[in-house]
Amino acid sequence: MYIVTTTQLTLVQIDNYGPWTVTPEPRREMDLQTLQSRLFADVAQFVGSRGGYVFFTRFDNMIAVTNGIGRDAHAVLQESIRNRYPVTISLGVGIADTPAGALEAATEQIQAAGSAQDEGRTEVLGGEFLDTEATEPLTIAHFDVKNATGKYTDQLNEFDSFIHIERSYASLMEYMRTAHGALSFFVGGDNIIAVCPELTAADYQAAVEHVETDVDVELQVGVGRGESAHKAGYAAKHALEDCRFSGTTVEIDQTAVAASDD
Amino acid sequence: MYIVTTTQLTLVQIDNYGPWTVTPEPRREMDLQTLQSRLFADVAQFVGSRGGYVFFTRFDNMIAVTNGIGRDAHAVLQESIRNRYPVTISLGVGIADTPAGALEAATEQIQAAGSAQDEGRTEVLGGEFLDTEATEPLTIAHFDVKNATGKYTDQLNEFDSFIHIERSYASLMEYMRTAHGALSFFVGGDNIIAVCPELTAADYQAAVEHVETDVDVELQVGVGRGESAHKAGYAAKHALEDCRFSGTTVEIDQTAVAASDD
Amino acid sequence: MYIVTTTQLTLVQIDNYGPWTVTPEPRREMDLQTLQSRLFADVAQFVGSRGGYVFFTRFDNMIAVTNGIGRDAHAVLQESIRNRYPVTISLGVGIADTPAGALEAATEQIQAAGSAQDEGRTEVLGGEFLDTEATEPLTIAHFDVKNATGKYTDQLNEFDSFIHIERSYASLMEYMRTAHGALSFFVGGDNIIAVCPELTAADYQAAVEHVETDVDVELQVGVGRGESAHKAGYAAKHALEDCRFSGTTVEIDQTAVAASDD
Amino acid sequence: MYIVTTTQLTLVQIDNYGPWTVTPEPRREMDLQTLQSRLFADVAQFVGSRGGYVFFTRFDNMIAVTNGIGRDAHAVLQESIRNRYPVTISLGVGIADTPAGALEAATEQIQAAGSAQDEGRTEVLGGEFLDTEATEPLTIAHFDVKNATGKYTDQLNEFDSFIHIERSYASLMEYMRTAHGALSFFVGGDNIIAVCPELTAADYQAAVEHVETDVDVELQVGVGRGESAHKAGYAAKHALEDCRFSGTTVEIDQTAVAASDD
Repeated sequence: MYIVTTTQLTLVQIDNYGPWTVTPEPRREMDLQTLQSRLFADVAQFVGSRGGYVFFTRFDNMIAVTNGIGRDAHAVLQESIRNRYPVTISLGVGIADTPAGALEAATEQIQAAGSAQDEGRTEVLGGEFLDTEATEPLTIAHFDVKNATGKYTDQLNEFDSFIHIERSYASLMEYMRTAHGALSFFVGGDNIIAVCPELTAADYQAAVEHVETDVDVELQVGVGRGESAHKAGYAAKHALEDCRFSGTTVEIDQTAVAASDD
Repeated sequence: MYIVTTTQLTLVQIDNYGPWTVTPEPRREMDLQTLQSRLFADVAQFVGSRGGYVFFTRFDNMIAVTNGIGRDAHAVLQESIRNRYPVTISLGVGIADTPAGALEAATEQIQAAGSAQDEGRTEVLGGEFLDTEATEPLTIAHFDVKNATGKYTDQLNEFDSFIHIERSYASLMEYMRTAHGALSFFVGGDNIIAVCPELTAADYQAAVEHVETDVDVELQVGVGRGESAHKAGYAAKHALEDCRFSGTTVEIDQTAVAASDD
Repeated sequence: MYIVTTTQLTLVQIDNYGPWTVTPEPRREMDLQTLQSRLFADVAQFVGSRGGYVFFTRFDNMIAVTNGIGRDAHAVLQESIRNRYPVTISLGVGIADTPAGALEAATEQIQAAGSAQDEGRTEVLGGEFLDTEATEPLTIAHFDVKNATGKYTDQLNEFDSFIHIERSYASLMEYMRTAHGALSFFVGGDNIIAVCPELTAADYQAAVEHVETDVDVELQVGVGRGESAHKAGYAAKHALEDCRFSGTTVEIDQTAVAASDD
Repeated sequence: MYIVTTTQLTLVQIDNYGPWTVTPEPRREMDLQTLQSRLFADVAQFVGSRGGYVFFTRFDNMIAVTNGIGRDAHAVLQESIRNRYPVTISLGVGIADTPAGALEAATEQIQAAGSAQDEGRTEVLGGEFLDTEATEPLTIAHFDVKNATGKYTDQLNEFDSFIHIERSYASLMEYMRTAHGALSFFVGGDNIIAVCPELTAADYQAAVEHVETDVDVELQVGVGRGESAHKAGYAAKHALEDCRFSGTTVEIDQTAVAASDD
């Protein structure tokens, strides 16, 4: 058995956003927050209903897992945002066996067309797309903090709870990026979702141990594979439920492995 | 001249959210992301149009600066969320001269009523409110990264850019919390907004230097005061524009100081 | 006893919207529908959380009942839409003892500044505002169709059900406008909300009989008064519940009458 | 040449909505308006980005043109609404050569499962779907009022403008339904979109003349055909632009006819 995961990532970048936020005067911060979070929500619905995932990252730059979503759908998304928002978006797409490699290719598409603050550079749409019928699996790992409610939320003030979660995220994101070319995203609560290349249970165990040693927060992780981010992520959620019920630290859903094991 | 800042903070906590997200089965992640970000956007519009600020923090727990927003408005917000979402929210409110102190009081209101995962604990609304006509100032500091577009966004892949921003945030948030009881929030792009007690220019300079030494990212900061988060934050944005144009690292808007200096 | 109702109405008009929808090419209809309905929803939240009502009318022109909402709040709404949408809005405000009179004054504010399709006419904000602490009551009548579910929704195809509802609306809106200067709005389902001057139970009975004679649809109506659209409308909803339970055709909530009867 | 249009319609019905709006007490009207219009917007984005159209109709019952959108996508929509709203939706789907016939079939699917106010009847999903790769054309006619801005919006108060538009809509909807089994929907401004069977230019001319005779409002109409509502509707919009520029009353885009004419 040898599995190769292939990830298609899309970098969503708001065009010339920084200057827009202060022209002609700084705009009300809560309006900017509303704009950003609703734009993210719209991308989440668009991509999510097609089996993809998107992460808000910095909001003006978002990273989407778009296996199965082709160029035409990307163009419709771009048009729809232009029609409904005061800003436009550029979309760079890349494919690779590591998420970091895919993002590198996606980012280059946009950078090659000009600076993020170049007024004349709008609505870039470029890069390589997987066949939308392709079935190469990708891997999603869903981490959370063991007993976060009991240890933090119900004990500390909210900011101090958040500091612990944030520490675990900062530690994990750098470790997974450096060790494996995996991209990890905080998704709210005590949840971190990582888009990963093919890794072993021992690799995940090492990641969890790294975070515990580094910042003293105990994580657990469920891992899934599938031909879309949703399928892989859904398997990962079920595997994480297994951790919660059985007290284990790493659970890898075996369905996809078995399915691709012939 | 002696200024005392008074901050009213509201902790917004989704009731029993963790269990809801996996009952009866794990829910689609992109639907959860959409729900969370739209809920945040709605709170941002509600609070923001009344002069307040809200930060998404962990999304299931959000922290709002609510000087000038009274109990009745809080009740309307709670009712409106209940009417339009499949979840409800609890609101704890606190007042103190440091933001950390205010949050501590706000959090206690909610914790005292039960666990975040207690099914029977819904729609708590409690705590102390400032007079909505009160004019005690509060302080907002708006940080960003010097030349983030040139150094990161246009040079690195998006995740590696994000790692630098995230490092600076993790470093600043812990420093400001420990040194001053200030609460710092990443608000997208390369922007961090801190709700602060009264601090000196030297204090802000020290914070910036700490981050540079700690994680090698150069910040700049504009500081404003005002009787609402919006007024203080707007002054801070203008001061930050001054940093950008003049190349300075710390700018404190003097209007509010002068105004309160008699 | 003599009650004078005073209504403050705001006309919300999207600036130069028609030309925008076809420039440079016609825009995707579903994007326009999304833009319009979300803009309406945002105005509904803004106005509604301050005790007002807004009706979508033609979507590019919306009519709001804004007793208690002053000029500053109108300006914040205008700014917030500009910051988050690709279009801007003009706001004309009028006060009168009949809703039609108030709307006439509100509309004149906008028309005087230029055509709805004048590129140079943007973000008009003008008119007369009631004192935000004023307590003059206004009147809301909430109509619905007797047993609409049993007679239409569960029996006919949806369009044919809708035709009956639409007929009753067309008939009622013209009657109430002509007979009383009242403005009636379809608000979904089988519900029509009318902003009215002070009318008697016999007046409402006559309106219901007119519709039955005209288009053979049986309505019932609850009426309320209050110092805000929400308060008046909430009393009207309760009165309509009384119709549903007791089988009566017209119910007028007496609380406000009694309160103002000394 | 003989063209047969085939329309797939979906009836979207909020389950048990009426009772929900008044349980345990009547809910704030502006929250209901927000809920309804945002639910419509979400369906518009979902369906619209897949080439479909949806019309708000009564909001608690919406009618969608869903050629090219299969059962799986309908199930995802249903799941997504359940995950993000306090209500659920039922979806009935029908196919026929007249829109009225398709809606009849779609409605029966839902009615057969129980009343719209039956608590136990939730999330019906049934009916016949076209092959998602099918290319049978459907027809969209886009009507608007000749010089509505000059004659109404800039001259009358907004409600009186609306009365004229509403009259034209009421007249057209009944005529097109009765004469042709076509379904016409007001979509804001002075725009009416009709989903039609195959009709001649003379048929459209007769419809326009009927409305002028009946209620003294002058309409014009562009007609398009295509394998999706978006394609047909987009051709109709271009044809309507031709009316505006050349002053004609009926324009039928010939592209689809020519394409299917061999």
